[in-house]
Amino acid sequence: MTDDCIFCKIGRREIEGDIVDHDDIVFVLRDINPQAPVHLLVVPYEHLGSLTEIDEGNAGLMGRMVLMANRAARLEGVAKSGYRLTINCGKEGAQSVGHLHMHVLGGRQLSGQLG
Amino acid sequence: MTDDCIFCKIGRREIEGDIVDHDDIVFVLRDINPQAPVHLLVVPYEHLGSLTEIDEGNAGLMGRMVLMANRAARLEGVAKSGYRLTINCGKEGAQSVGHLHMHVLGGRQLSGQLG
Repeated sequence: MTDDCIFCKIGRREIEGDIVDHDDIVFVLRDINPQAPVHLLVVPYEHLGSLTEIDEGNAGLMGRMVLMANRAARLEGVAKSGYRLTINCGKEGAQSVGHLHMHVLGGRQLSGQLG
Repeated sequence: MTDDCIFCKIGRREIEGDIVDHDDIVFVLRDINPQAPVHLLVVPYEHLGSLTEIDEGNAGLMGRMVLMANRAARLEGVAKSGYRLTINCGKEGAQSVGHLHMHVLGGRQLSGQLG
């Protein structure tokens, strides 16, 4: 947890975010600049700066994030039509917030172009 | 394992693929139509049709896939410059092969447009 991280602040409910689901490990937030009818972010409460901080010791978190992403896809009605999970890492990966998060996009035909 | 799945066949070394890394659970393959200087696929040996087949029982696989993706990013020299992990699921997710796989893209500035 860090004082100046927007996702930490949203996770602590210090600032408002459109949280649609959560468990004790992660919360699921609607992206404020959606690129598709469904655009959610799966965010761990724990502050991890990026994907490069995932190692043998905390890799289980990735499974938890995917389970919550799959649940979100079902709740949003896109599990059968299709969806995409993306994690951006670092500058060339276009990571926009320095707190690990997974995008869930769906609700329209997504391009085969991945960025 | 299925007889007519191209990733199963590559995993069994029945047909050629540019496999750059593997462990006992997943293999890492260079995409034949790369969208970036680094474009790899992390593929489990086990045949799972898509992301929707991930549940509490096999979610640990996702951690293993991310660890291998992170290792691939380091080996390819993009861990510091940045990279992106993407899993496409279903028709609107633009999933192209019916065997779960994770894209690893890097080596150039990726767009913030996720598809």
